[in-house]
Amino acid sequence: MTSLSDLPIRDDLRGLSPYGAPQLDVPVRLNTNENSYPVPEPVVEAIGKAVAAELRDLNRYPDREAVALRADLAEYLGHGLTGDGVWAANGSNEIQQQLLQAFGGPGRTALGFTPAYSMHPLLALGTGTRWVPARRGVDFGLTADEAVAQVREHRPDVVFLCSPNNPTGTALDPAVVAAVLDVAPGMVVVDEAYAEFARPGTVSALAVLPGHPRLVVTRTMSKAFGFAGGRLGYLAADPAVVAAVQLVRLPYHLSALTQAAARAALAHRETLLGTVAEIMRQRDRIVAALRDRGLRVADSDANFVLYEVGGDQGVAWRAMLAQGVLVRDVGLSGWLRVTAGTPAETDAFLAAVDEIQREGQAAPPRPKGTPS
Amino acid sequence: MTSLSDLPIRDDLRGLSPYGAPQLDVPVRLNTNENSYPVPEPVVEAIGKAVAAELRDLNRYPDREAVALRADLAEYLGHGLTGDGVWAANGSNEIQQQLLQAFGGPGRTALGFTPAYSMHPLLALGTGTRWVPARRGVDFGLTADEAVAQVREHRPDVVFLCSPNNPTGTALDPAVVAAVLDVAPGMVVVDEAYAEFARPGTVSALAVLPGHPRLVVTRTMSKAFGFAGGRLGYLAADPAVVAAVQLVRLPYHLSALTQAAARAALAHRETLLGTVAEIMRQRDRIVAALRDRGLRVADSDANFVLYEVGGDQGVAWRAMLAQGVLVRDVGLSGWLRVTAGTPAETDAFLAAVDEIQREGQAAPPRPKGTPS
Repeated sequence: MTSLSDLPIRDDLRGLSPYGAPQLDVPVRLNTNENSYPVPEPVVEAIGKAVAAELRDLNRYPDREAVALRADLAEYLGHGLTGDGVWAANGSNEIQQQLLQAFGGPGRTALGFTPAYSMHPLLALGTGTRWVPARRGVDFGLTADEAVAQVREHRPDVVFLCSPNNPTGTALDPAVVAAVLDVAPGMVVVDEAYAEFARPGTVSALAVLPGHPRLVVTRTMSKAFGFAGGRLGYLAADPAVVAAVQLVRLPYHLSALTQAAARAALAHRETLLGTVAEIMRQRDRIVAALRDRGLRVADSDANFVLYEVGGDQGVAWRAMLAQGVLVRDVGLSGWLRVTAGTPAETDAFLAAVDEIQREGQAAPPRPKGTPS
Repeated sequence: MTSLSDLPIRDDLRGLSPYGAPQLDVPVRLNTNENSYPVPEPVVEAIGKAVAAELRDLNRYPDREAVALRADLAEYLGHGLTGDGVWAANGSNEIQQQLLQAFGGPGRTALGFTPAYSMHPLLALGTGTRWVPARRGVDFGLTADEAVAQVREHRPDVVFLCSPNNPTGTALDPAVVAAVLDVAPGMVVVDEAYAEFARPGTVSALAVLPGHPRLVVTRTMSKAFGFAGGRLGYLAADPAVVAAVQLVRLPYHLSALTQAAARAALAHRETLLGTVAEIMRQRDRIVAALRDRGLRVADSDANFVLYEVGGDQGVAWRAMLAQGVLVRDVGLSGWLRVTAGTPAETDAFLAAVDEIQREGQAAPPRPKGTPS
């Protein structure tokens, strides 16, 4: 049998494993920051109708430029945006890959402040872009001075900022974005996948777009819209940025079904985004409850919470799994990440935390082959 | 206003235009090799039901590995394939991009025999892979000797073969594939997007997969299945190749809607592929009719025909457009490509050809800004 290592794959891919959280069948899944609420019936019906209307003509290629969808996304974002300043793709991963293909790539450099979204360095790898892992400061924070110093040192072609940051959860001070924009020699990408969950008063980088043609804000419908299965990511930027990604995008990358389903979801956004307030309540409840239990917790503007387990996070992860609760080990020594979902899921999560604290975090023996 | 050239895009993208045929509103569209037949009502209903069943759970990410769809595709292909030897993505463009990310990329070389599918060099550009445009022989043919000599000369990491070839239409002699496999130092990708339209007796490279772990066959549901709007491309290869592309694929790249719709289409393949025989009849009719009119025509195993217009192809393209028939100028001096569709479309196409021949190919003045 041929193995991967027998094939002439790129040297920089040898020995790697595919990205992805373990897909385990567990009662309470709080590991991938999905929206725990299913799509409400009226929206199911509306999306179903919108998709059905496309089916007869599936023999034709979809609108290559997704003009109507981009206009809808612009209208949702506000800030005076129009469709020519918006671009959509199959998830914000594809958006960010296109940005790296246009502005990064061989001979170029991208920089991010780790820990941040773990796909950023993988997207750099996949596009031949050199990756610079810059550092965050105390308590996973990032000040303007810390960011500016590292951007000045490395002069990257693309800077990734992540606000609210994943996996830590905290939104960036707008002063950091402004300072990085001032000194960055290339593009500045602000990944705002979780923006809709931010605490009151948080400022989106969308507000800074006018006059900053090298700023790109990326968003997704996977989280607040509860549309992860529909795969729709997008960006807002100067129309010239959209023209740039159109040079590298795969033609007809976005199916007619995706375009229709996303438009129907956007038309029902009031209903879909109705879950956001409840999820924020659960998020705040988790933060408060964990702090009550004496654990350190990062401030969260997202639908997840990063908390210190008071021991080895791999052991704690398995102990939670034994309680039927799947959280995420993001590889941060001593910390785990939990998604905020329904009140019942919060109950189950906190009960598992309590049970493990009672047991003195005695973990069951690690089952063979269990990924962590 | 910011223009594209003000942005720090990659130097190798400067001055380029996005890929894509002009999307013009013309009565008879025979320019993108779509299947002219809409999806039949029973299949519309089946796909609608399959998609509707996914909608409630769109808040969850789709199956990252698309296991059920890949099993269905394997079963369709036959040749003893199973799902672990099949991989699917949003169109065969994405499949081929993933192959270049895994086996090509910076410092590596891909080679194709031009004229062939014009996305291959663009995918190389987008992945930082050096592109070698090798040559076809007399009448756009390619013999084993011609192919072997150029592969030996350039020692590419990835060879693209295209069978049936686009835009010429002719399938490769299996001896060419075998000879290239013998000498190629890296991967050999046979793009069989149009395989279902091949003339009787044509052999698919699928038959050669056993024992050739460096061979990859790519397919699409856009053409014979009439599923262009659904965006579903796939590959068949050794499971180790699938493991390789899983290192570079974007996680959750294939939406739950795409997976469900494609599975429903595959379940109704007898109905969907029912158009293939009629399209082949129209293809053969176009070939014969053009030859009757004294024009040179490439042998076609696809749902399109490449023919010599007897003059400047840009002039002929505009003359056809003036007759309400949109064909494709693929940039081959003196040649145009026409899609084979319904009998009525063939009638309209041939009537337009006759009218232009009558006019002595007098073309109307080129309207300002008309793409060609």
